[in-house]
Amino acid sequence: MVRRPSTPTAQLALFFLFLLLLSPAMSTAKRPRLRQPCKTLVLYFHDIIYDGRNAANATAAIVAAPVWANRTILAPLNHFGDVAVFDDPVTLDNNLHSPPVGRAQGLYLYDRKSIFTAWLAFSLVLNSTDYRGTLNLLGADPLMNKTRDISVVGGTGDFFMTRGIATVMTDAFEGEVYFRLRLDIKLYECY
Amino acid sequence: MVRRPSTPTAQLALFFLFLLLLSPAMSTAKRPRLRQPCKTLVLYFHDIIYDGRNAANATAAIVAAPVWANRTILAPLNHFGDVAVFDDPVTLDNNLHSPPVGRAQGLYLYDRKSIFTAWLAFSLVLNSTDYRGTLNLLGADPLMNKTRDISVVGGTGDFFMTRGIATVMTDAFEGEVYFRLRLDIKLYECY
Amino acid sequence: MVRRPSTPTAQLALFFLFLLLLSPAMSTAKRPRLRQPCKTLVLYFHDIIYDGRNAANATAAIVAAPVWANRTILAPLNHFGDVAVFDDPVTLDNNLHSPPVGRAQGLYLYDRKSIFTAWLAFSLVLNSTDYRGTLNLLGADPLMNKTRDISVVGGTGDFFMTRGIATVMTDAFEGEVYFRLRLDIKLYECY
Repeated sequence: MVRRPSTPTAQLALFFLFLLLLSPAMSTAKRPRLRQPCKTLVLYFHDIIYDGRNAANATAAIVAAPVWANRTILAPLNHFGDVAVFDDPVTLDNNLHSPPVGRAQGLYLYDRKSIFTAWLAFSLVLNSTDYRGTLNLLGADPLMNKTRDISVVGGTGDFFMTRGIATVMTDAFEGEVYFRLRLDIKLYECY
Repeated sequence: MVRRPSTPTAQLALFFLFLLLLSPAMSTAKRPRLRQPCKTLVLYFHDIIYDGRNAANATAAIVAAPVWANRTILAPLNHFGDVAVFDDPVTLDNNLHSPPVGRAQGLYLYDRKSIFTAWLAFSLVLNSTDYRGTLNLLGADPLMNKTRDISVVGGTGDFFMTRGIATVMTDAFEGEVYFRLRLDIKLYECY
Repeated sequence: MVRRPSTPTAQLALFFLFLLLLSPAMSTAKRPRLRQPCKTLVLYFHDIIYDGRNAANATAAIVAAPVWANRTILAPLNHFGDVAVFDDPVTLDNNLHSPPVGRAQGLYLYDRKSIFTAWLAFSLVLNSTDYRGTLNLLGADPLMNKTRDISVVGGTGDFFMTRGIATVMTDAFEGEVYFRLRLDIKLYECY
């Protein structure tokens, strides 16, 4: 019979059809996805907070504080309750005076009385020859740890719809006026 | 021999198996995904900020400001450091008096001394015959640009788990008291 | 002829190739994904807001308020405009004195004059035998509703890149000083 040889083939075909039907289900939820970033970036951002004397240079200012504190000097008890708004230059290396490739804009706050820890919500607004677009970030920043991971929750432009992780390191600080953060950004969802 | 004809078939089958094994890897990371939105919405939201005289109508209020400013009048230097909390009516057209389909709730802040630019984090809480659910948004709003893109980072209800982009336009403003934003929302991940 | 039997097979193969080519397109956008969570957690968090007398116990403080209010007592008009920064203990049951498995850190604000409603942006920083990592959350909290859904927009550590929904319930409150939220967290994207 002419149809005979196709029988094992048809079985194979059905098996593949079954696999294919399975595959959309696999692509959500529990499937272990690859942990290889689709894009990586290293950026530095430089924060100079207003302290009553540096209005010309300051890139951040305390805008909210608990009732026992003021907005010129960071609060006692590990700055608990201070909220700062910032627009910080972003550079490709650790030099404050390097040409900025963008700005980091948003807010940070200090959220604990007993230890020094912060929380960040901001956008990286990049505008360079390499990248034009924004990344939106959010997360806890327990700044006594050498590295802290926060979430990249979205992006626009060259970073359209991306998601990922930014590993934050305090690269330097000078008293309570200047700090520099290094961000190792690893995007795991790219479009 | 009866197995002969199945040999090229088996090779094809192996080739497809290989493709299938590849496909989960392709579905993360670098694979270029379609940029067709799965859902689009156009919404307007209307913000009337408290200025000391309009308590009855105001839908937003300055709640934080740098030490050199107060909370009744928007701060000098492009409002740098002002944080406003808002609960603004959302409409389907540009008329403040149209029946609202929901509320925009959250905060915005002005983050730069040298130019006029803002940052937004808020939820669209929709409750109409068409949509019941929330969208959560985040992003930089350089409001001197005609259009700005922010991220839709999540949703609930009818917008369960969605992600996307909202293109923000300043549709109108009256002095420093009223502004109207148009949001062109394009969702690229729907469930 | 020896090639004859392979013809229907080749056709089938082409059909599968076509399906395979289709499949990346299917995996974005409109495809209905499974609504089965890949991970669930139930957590409680306990918020004691500073009221001028409880400095030792307080885990939260009002840091911003509209001009007509102060930072010791929650504002009139349903606390409209109050912003609180918090670092609240997180437990596995509803007992404030159970050993914490982590902290909830971030901010909440009250955003409406006419009814009692809030907005949340915070991180769950978990550090227990079961979980080590963070979840980042965002969303409207219309707290007069029995349950409210907010978005889990990202995660790190054991919650690497996760997304999902947290259903928030007010589990208890004592006057305006203490409240306890129950979070039913359902993650729909796991890695």
